[in-house]
Amino acid sequence: MKPMGPIPDGFAAIDGELAIGGRKASDLAAQGTPVFVYDRAMLDARVADLRAAMPPWLAIHYAMKANPFAPLLAHMAGLVDGFDVASAGEMQLALEAGMTADAISFAGPGKSEGELEAAVRARVTLNTESAGEIRRALAIGDRLGIAPRLAIRVNPSFDIKGSGMKMGGGAKPFGIDAELVPPLAREIAASGAEWRGFHIYAGSQALDAQAVIATLAATLALTGELADQAGVNVPHCNLGGGFGIPYFPGDTPLDIARVGEALDAAFRVLPDRLAETHFAIELGRFLVGEAGVYLTRVIDVKESHGEIFAVTDGGLHHQLAASGNFGTVVRRNYPVAVANRFGEAAAQREQTIVGRLCTPLDLLANKVALPQVRPGDLVAIFCAGAYGASASPAAFLGHGPAREILA
Amino acid sequence: MKPMGPIPDGFAAIDGELAIGGRKASDLAAQGTPVFVYDRAMLDARVADLRAAMPPWLAIHYAMKANPFAPLLAHMAGLVDGFDVASAGEMQLALEAGMTADAISFAGPGKSEGELEAAVRARVTLNTESAGEIRRALAIGDRLGIAPRLAIRVNPSFDIKGSGMKMGGGAKPFGIDAELVPPLAREIAASGAEWRGFHIYAGSQALDAQAVIATLAATLALTGELADQAGVNVPHCNLGGGFGIPYFPGDTPLDIARVGEALDAAFRVLPDRLAETHFAIELGRFLVGEAGVYLTRVIDVKESHGEIFAVTDGGLHHQLAASGNFGTVVRRNYPVAVANRFGEAAAQREQTIVGRLCTPLDLLANKVALPQVRPGDLVAIFCAGAYGASASPAAFLGHGPAREILA
Repeated sequence: MKPMGPIPDGFAAIDGELAIGGRKASDLAAQGTPVFVYDRAMLDARVADLRAAMPPWLAIHYAMKANPFAPLLAHMAGLVDGFDVASAGEMQLALEAGMTADAISFAGPGKSEGELEAAVRARVTLNTESAGEIRRALAIGDRLGIAPRLAIRVNPSFDIKGSGMKMGGGAKPFGIDAELVPPLAREIAASGAEWRGFHIYAGSQALDAQAVIATLAATLALTGELADQAGVNVPHCNLGGGFGIPYFPGDTPLDIARVGEALDAAFRVLPDRLAETHFAIELGRFLVGEAGVYLTRVIDVKESHGEIFAVTDGGLHHQLAASGNFGTVVRRNYPVAVANRFGEAAAQREQTIVGRLCTPLDLLANKVALPQVRPGDLVAIFCAGAYGASASPAAFLGHGPAREILA
Repeated sequence: MKPMGPIPDGFAAIDGELAIGGRKASDLAAQGTPVFVYDRAMLDARVADLRAAMPPWLAIHYAMKANPFAPLLAHMAGLVDGFDVASAGEMQLALEAGMTADAISFAGPGKSEGELEAAVRARVTLNTESAGEIRRALAIGDRLGIAPRLAIRVNPSFDIKGSGMKMGGGAKPFGIDAELVPPLAREIAASGAEWRGFHIYAGSQALDAQAVIATLAATLALTGELADQAGVNVPHCNLGGGFGIPYFPGDTPLDIARVGEALDAAFRVLPDRLAETHFAIELGRFLVGEAGVYLTRVIDVKESHGEIFAVTDGGLHHQLAASGNFGTVVRRNYPVAVANRFGEAAAQREQTIVGRLCTPLDLLANKVALPQVRPGDLVAIFCAGAYGASASPAAFLGHGPAREILA
């Protein structure tokens, strides 16, 4: 047997079936599988819990790269204070979801001329990532007669200790090295552009509250230093985020109460220059990851050399990360359950759940303890709300994309 | 500096630019980047070289999962003897490309009822992967009044030594364990179905001729044993393939002449029972991988902590495998060049080529020796003809898919 990650809190059974958004798995799957289901109430609860834990004047932004499903975006637009986008395509979806341009910021190391122009026209904030990009944006603003809203994305000299993905610390393609920032901030502030402040993103998928607290403290200190060195005020500061969710055996949830208390204490001793700054944190996976479940139906159960394989109608073309092929070095099991017999005791024998793709990479749960799986069963893969449908090669092998439902 | 894989043979310069299909990179990129370009003449040459090396009566099948771009499929349909498909969607594309149903076989561990029915109706060969699937296919044939064409995919007890991806050997979700095959083969042969024979696929991406030869020999031996044990003839046998291409530093091409000679010798001593068998090999990446180039334009060049980063308008949303996030444990560099200054000497300083996605995973070439890269330059990533466009998360971050051209 190999262990699985923990099933997120908040999922219960109705008539012995996993319920998502108050609906039974079999109902959700009735129109076809595989299907991603996102639980609206869990999104609400997550944002409410976060707001309760964080200082009240800290804005919460949603990094929509985590999940750009239009109904989910529209729902999130009513919950959070801003969206962070990473392409002109995402910007358009954010606007269509009802987020105001004033509350959208656009980061990304390779913004094209067309993207910069679209962003300037739409009046969203550009988190600029190089001196060259600043000048391109200013030139576009001049040409269009629109003052671009420009912030600087800073490449900090630190990252989040133990984070799943490092976005700062050392040489990076993201943002501008901190020591190069002050003259560029002055240049923007002195231009016709609207100076918006800083975006400092040090890493993602961190579960250790102490590491997150240390990073946020360092980010605040860096913001003050940069403001002092540049001699500019900082209207806005995006502190990044990096709050993770438990995916794997042994992972425990981030203690957001501790993070909130530490942020509150840090904000009480801010330097005067940052007294008027609007601070935001930017979270993607933390807001939506645990609210999503991928449901896939078992097509065949077979035995090979003493091992049991359940072959589903899903796979890595929908849930690449769960197969261990996206951003992880060692493959581990996501939390998985038999959705139509949720809570039933595990069979004696271990079972392996695979996708339907004709490749050994398509492994969804390796040698796990589950109720005995039969053809027709629905397998639930949890933690599918972020970096699932949109971050997987949906065209691979020609089965097509999965359905998505906001329930 | 970190090394790159070898640029495939056959690429030359026109006016100092990389030429693909006789056209300059700048021409191919003129309608927009990023773009995948597949060189028709290189596809022709690869199949011709392969036919020259292999015994003349060995059929060559194209495993279209490697690249299902419709114009490329239509071209390949004129070059090879059959297509192997892995979904009903691929089957439909194969038929539309002009391949006859008789020359299409359909493998995949999780075929749905709908897929089985579509395959039976279309009269393609189903490579069945379990006893349950055989019975489902027979039932569908009965219901439709069509004799299904059924082969058995065998899970051999061996794999290709040193292959990139193991598809056989030990417990697998693919095919039917060899020792369970004989009674099932008899069952099919005795049913109203058309018995087509065996499909034995042991692995992929092998560069060692001796390993490929040993596997093919074992596959032939297994075919004979199974036929004897089942007491059936074997009208067709798909021997698999697994011929690899060089991607990484130190990789050398597979010696197909040696493989062909060994196959020829092995075929001369076939048991009588296999005298009438039509043998095929099934190749995907080997046929198309090296004929494809991914062209992406440099948007920005920046320095961070002493390292140079060229940020392109491409990325892992188009070329996931080149970023090291698909089926490889340790990330290594694919062959890469500056396409508009092809052959120019490398700059003194190493450069890193990244995609435009806002994630540290989006690394296309790490610390490589290239001519000094400037905004507007075209970067070519080679070995992009297989498992590129269709095997990457095109929706990720909202930039959309890449163009594709058969040149």
